Formats: sequence, structure tokens, C-alpha cells
Amino acid sequence: MSDPIITLTTDYGSADPLVGTMKGAMLSVNPAARIVDLTHAVEPYDVLDGALALAQAWSYFPEGTIHVVVVDPGVGTARRPILVRAAGHWFVAPDNGVLWPAVGGAESLAAWHITAQRYFRQPVSRTFHGRDIFGPVAAALSLSKEGGNFGPRITSIEKIPFPAPRLEGGRIFATVLRVDHFGNLLTSLTAQHAAEARASGKMRLTVGGAQISRLVETFGEGAKGEAVALVGSSGYLEVAVNQGSAARLLGVGRGSEVVLAKEG
Amino acid sequence: MSDPIITLTTDYGSADPLVGTMKGAMLSVNPAARIVDLTHAVEPYDVLDGALALAQAWSYFPEGTIHVVVVDPGVGTARRPILVRAAGHWFVAPDNGVLWPAVGGAESLAAWHITAQRYFRQPVSRTFHGRDIFGPVAAALSLSKEGGNFGPRITSIEKIPFPAPRLEGGRIFATVLRVDHFGNLLTSLTAQHAAEARASGKMRLTVGGAQISRLVETFGEGAKGEAVALVGSSGYLEVAVNQGSAARLLGVGRGSEVVLAKEG
Amino acid sequence: MSDPIITLTTDYGSADPLVGTMKGAMLSVNPAARIVDLTHAVEPYDVLDGALALAQAWSYFPEGTIHVVVVDPGVGTARRPILVRAAGHWFVAPDNGVLWPAVGGAESLAAWHITAQRYFRQPVSRTFHGRDIFGPVAAALSLSKEGGNFGPRITSIEKIPFPAPRLEGGRIFATVLRVDHFGNLLTSLTAQHAAEARASGKMRLTVGGAQISRLVETFGEGAKGEAVALVGSSGYLEVAVNQGSAARLLGVGRGSEVVLAKEG
Repeated sequence: MSDPIITLTTDYGSADPLVGTMKGAMLSVNPAARIVDLTHAVEPYDVLDGALALAQAWSYFPEGTIHVVVVDPGVGTARRPILVRAAGHWFVAPDNGVLWPAVGGAESLAAWHITAQRYFRQPVSRTFHGRDIFGPVAAALSLSKEGGNFGPRITSIEKIPFPAPRLEGGRIFATVLRVDHFGNLLTSLTAQHAAEARASGKMRLTVGGAQISRLVETFGEGAKGEAVALVGSSGYLEVAVNQGSAARLLGVGRGSEVVLAKEG
Repeated sequence: MSDPIITLTTDYGSADPLVGTMKGAMLSVNPAARIVDLTHAVEPYDVLDGALALAQAWSYFPEGTIHVVVVDPGVGTARRPILVRAAGHWFVAPDNGVLWPAVGGAESLAAWHITAQRYFRQPVSRTFHGRDIFGPVAAALSLSKEGGNFGPRITSIEKIPFPAPRLEGGRIFATVLRVDHFGNLLTSLTAQHAAEARASGKMRLTVGGAQISRLVETFGEGAKGEAVALVGSSGYLEVAVNQGSAARLLGVGRGSEVVLAKEG
Repeated sequence: MSDPIITLTTDYGSADPLVGTMKGAMLSVNPAARIVDLTHAVEPYDVLDGALALAQAWSYFPEGTIHVVVVDPGVGTARRPILVRAAGHWFVAPDNGVLWPAVGGAESLAAWHITAQRYFRQPVSRTFHGRDIFGPVAAALSLSKEGGNFGPRITSIEKIPFPAPRLEGGRIFATVLRVDHFGNLLTSLTAQHAAEARASGKMRLTVGGAQISRLVETFGEGAKGEAVALVGSSGYLEVAVNQGSAARLLGVGRGSEVVLAKEG
């Protein structure tokens, strides 16, 4: 049997030894845990940003993986820590909606309120629950794989308001969810929106004052410096520039409006 | 038995393959070593900054962990590489004081001057001792756990001048030791200073021209945008802004003065 | 036997969960793979920059290590994915020259065109071959170590135009290949150029309008703030400033001209 895999998604950044300290607390519980960083560059305190990162990545890991998410503006206040089992994976996070985009669509979902303090690192600080609660609980879970050890079952978990595109006057108004490392714009439009636009024969995407009418399949199809649309690896419509930054070229960023019209 | 754990704390950054190369040299000695990054974002050449990072994190790892620290402005010059055993952990570093805040308070401390060149990667460069000395020595140590293999015992190691708060005219003058990823100010004031201030009934902290009189227990207790003081997860008094950056709000940074008065 | 080691070199950055997702896809194929990051800060789309990073680091890993490089401006287009065996190591990358500086000088080199789709993660996206092709193929290779499983042998791989220094009128014109985390300038001049200059008794290096005539062996030999030349850990001549940034001091960056004259 392989060592258990635990992924980490946080807004802790990489400037401080926060992630390293959290890993220490986890390895003190289970020295055989195989800890993999998803990302620690979630926008500070931004639950939706962390939720998107997890939703993009979790399903590529093997069944049985434990995913820990610590984006936790309410650390030390009343929000509860939870443990979720869905689609053969485990999730450990504060109950603030951060898990919803990843697990909300799962056919079967079991959830527990984490209350068993014997699994917490003592003394529990009020400000660093990644180290004192979420990390050690995930490491203990990797030993037992028994959700019931950690607290009572709960029947629902927090949802997160996801910015869904809205139809108005034949056009679809959507938004830039995030800008990636390459400057690609990840929009809230999906592969299905793209398919419908393509089926209509004509598509026009307006973003940052620019109009984009080419829907391509690979980054390399765009001319150098040309903004094109394509369905990205995470299933969302993206705006990209071949070997360039769409964010810089179009002068837009997270939260910018994107409008899709099905006729030229 | 689990694979041995080795942590790394350096000022190598993440732009170059320096850390990766060092890990390769380590895995060439012990392919089973489990290498964990504490941080590679120590301020370049800043021994105190590296010392603080290590001091914050090391004790959360399991006993037997080997901690390698490479913040080494004197690389290739006369400063000696050392190996220290303290509090059940191992430490490998240049003897420039970087270990002192972590191990200086340990009840028993054994130290060795690393001289056994058979454990070095040959040829030893003059500029990259993480790859050629510290990494390979730590990996070899993870196999033998015998300090005496690496050189003669030494009776003292370098200390580092730690900026201690000083009392003057009823007020305590301290300093901002570092600014973390969230913009929180880690000060040289400790939990004890905070407790005394609290006991006196009134506290006033002056930093960057602003006055802070609320000592809270969680980030979330502050109003959005309000600067508050709290004892952080590492035991120092911190200045924080709920869901904001204290460094930006107050216009201060590392080395800025912090004054604590016990009356309003 | 130890777990197989796989290194990753990409231009994916650390802001997105791209690297984490790729690791998930790899661990789904071989959960025992020990994945080590070389760097993910390769300049976006910059094949030469990725090639230099790999060339600097790969040989420090143990024999049998698998090195995956994904710097792939042509993702989804006709360039072929390849697998190379050289000097006892394995390499997996797009065939765009990125492997050349690492393996071009190897005595024996075997290469395969990766065509066996049964090893790809399905469905294969057009934009994220690290996750869908290179990562899973490397993980499968770590199980079998059989190049022939993945496609037909090929007899040559792409080279990369490496900016070689040129001799003109007794002077050698070279270039800054990259600026490292410390601001050191890695030039295209080698240890041999340095040795010849030293043998001539006098050396003068001109970069960014400044003249450097001291060739030292350690960073610490320079006066604080003085620009000096030294042969760096990767075998190239570097320009460095003791405890400072040569790039900032001299106002130069990647691609800047460096001229070496052998007389004062």
C-alpha cells in the first residue's frame, strides 16, 4: 500500500514558514503522509479564489486522497471546521463555502463537524488553525480513514455564491473569475456556452473593449499577439494570447465583465 | 520505520533551480530522505531573518528531524559548517548565529564542526555549499544519526544579537522583526509583555504614528480595516488588520519602532 | 529499493494549481513516485531558459531519475512529445530543443517519439499536456523503465541555438544568459574563458558600462558593493556583488552584452 496523499490549498503564501510549520505538525501525527501542494497563492482571505483552485485540481488525484483547504478569514471565530467525504475523496476545511464548487455536485456526500479535540495540536492557537486543527486532523484521518472519529455527522455544508453567467437580451453576461500565470483570462462561461456559440455559426466575445470572434482549440493557433477564445483545461472558456498575456493586452483583470453574443 | 525527514530553510528563492539541485545532491546520498521546505524566501544574506523562520517552525516537526539552514553570506570563507543536536532534533548550518534562536535555550546541546570531507560532494564549489556540503551532510546524517562521524566536538556555537525590547521611562521600545505574507507585523514584544500590559488594565501600542489600544485574541475580532494587537501563533505580539495589511495601513516595515506603554 | 524520483521543470509558475494538478495526474498513475520541483519559474514560453535550468541541475540527481520538462509554446500543435535516455537518466519533454543543453553532449543517447495514447490521461486537452501527457507518461515510465513502451525510436532530437560567445578583434563578445535570485549575472562565458583570461595576467570584463577586473573565488572576497567576476557553481562565469545585486548595481539584465578582453 502506498503512503496516503494529502493536498494543501491555502492563502499562506511562500514568504513565511507557515506552510512548512503546518507540514511539521502533520508529519508529527503521520510521518508517512505524502503532502502535495496544490497552491498557497490563493488571494488572501478570498474564499471563492481558493474554492476555484480546489475545484480545478482535486479530481486528478487518486481516490482516497485527502484535500485540506485553509482559506479562513474567520479563523478563531464561530465558523466550524468540517470534514467531507465525496466522490471517493476526503476534504478538510473551514465551513465557509470553500468546498462547495468541488463537492456540491457529488452524488453522495457525507459531512462531519470536527469537534474531537484529541486530534488537535495543543494548545490550539486562535490564529493558526492550519497548524493546530486542519493539518493534524487530516494527518490523523490519513491513518484511520474514519470520518466518524472526528465529530458528529452534519446534514449540510455552506454553499458559496458562484458568479453564474446571466442571459439578457440575447447576450450572456459573465465575468473573469481569475487571471492565470500566463495572463490567460479564466471566465465564468463554460464549454457549453462555447459549443452553443460555435453552433450558431457566429460568436462575438467582448472583453475590455476588445472583440474576439475566433474560437480556437490550442494556444498556438492564434497569431502572435492576437487575443483568441478557447475552452481551457478546466472546462471554462478562456481568453488567451499566443505567447503573450491577455490580461495585459486587454487591460482587464479578475472581476472584469465578459459579454458573449451569438451573432456577429 | 518512516523515512527520515529533512527540512530546508534558505535564501535561495524559487526563481532558480538552486533548491532543486540541492535536493538532487541530497537524494543522491539518501534517496529515501523526505525533504520538506520550510521557506526559501529568507531575505538574501539576512541571518536574523533565517534564524527567525527556523525558530518559529522547527519544534512542530517530529523528534529526529534534521533541519538544514543555508543563509550564508560568508559562503566559501572561513566560517565553519556545524552540526548541532538539541531537544531531540538535528541542525546543520553555517556557524553564523542562524541556529541560535532555535537552539540557544535547549537544556542539552551537542555540537560538531563538520570537517569530514568524505561526506562532501566533490568537487566542492566555493559558492554553493548547500549543494556540496550542507545538503549531502544532512542526507548522510539521516542514514547514520551519528554526529561524531562528521568532525570534532565543539564547545560553543555563534550567537546572534537578537533585538531585545528595552525599558525606558516606563515604556518598552521594541521593533518590527518581520512583516508576514498577510501584512501582519511580527514585533519583538512577547506574550509576556502583552500579559503585563493587559494586567495593567490599559495598553497603548504606538507604531508608525498610529496608536493601538485593543488587544484581541483572533484576527476576526477587529473591525474590517482596524489595526489591533494580538499574540500570534509564534508567541510574539503582532499588529494585524482584519482582512487587510497592517504594513500597508500603517506604512511601516521591518525594523520600524514599536513602543508599548502600560497606561492610556 | 527506493521510490522512483521524478523532477519537474516548467513555466507554470506557482500562482495557479497547475503544478499540483499535474502531480495529481502523476500520482494517479504511480502513487509511489517521489516528485521533486526543479523550478516552475522558467520564463513563460522561453525554451532556452528552461533548457538552462535543466542543464544546471539534472546531473546532481541519482542515476535513474526521470526529468520532466514542460516549456511548451507549441502545446497542442504538431511538435512531438519525446522520451530520451542519456547518461543513466531519463528525460520527458516536448521536442523543441529544451533537452539539448542537458543531453546533447551525452556519449550514448536513445530517444523515442511518445505516441502510445494508452499512457495519456483521457480526454487529452489541447492546452495542458503536462497534466495529460508528459506527467502521466513519466509516471508510467517510473513503473516500467522501458522507453520502447511509449513509441517508436527516433534518430535525432531538436537542437537549440545556444548563444555562444564569439571572438572578434581579440575580445570575446558574450551575453547575460540569466539573472539569478541574488541578482548575479550568469554569462555565456565559461570556466575556460576565465582560466585563459587569468593566465594572460590581466582581464577586463565590460558589462553595462562598468569594467570589472577582479576574478575572485568566493562571493565574500568582493568588498561590500563591489562587482566582481567568478566562476559560478554551474561552470559559467558570473558577475556578482558581495551581499548585493549585480543586476541592480549595473543596470543590466538577461540578454545584455558582456565583453571580455584579456588585457587591461
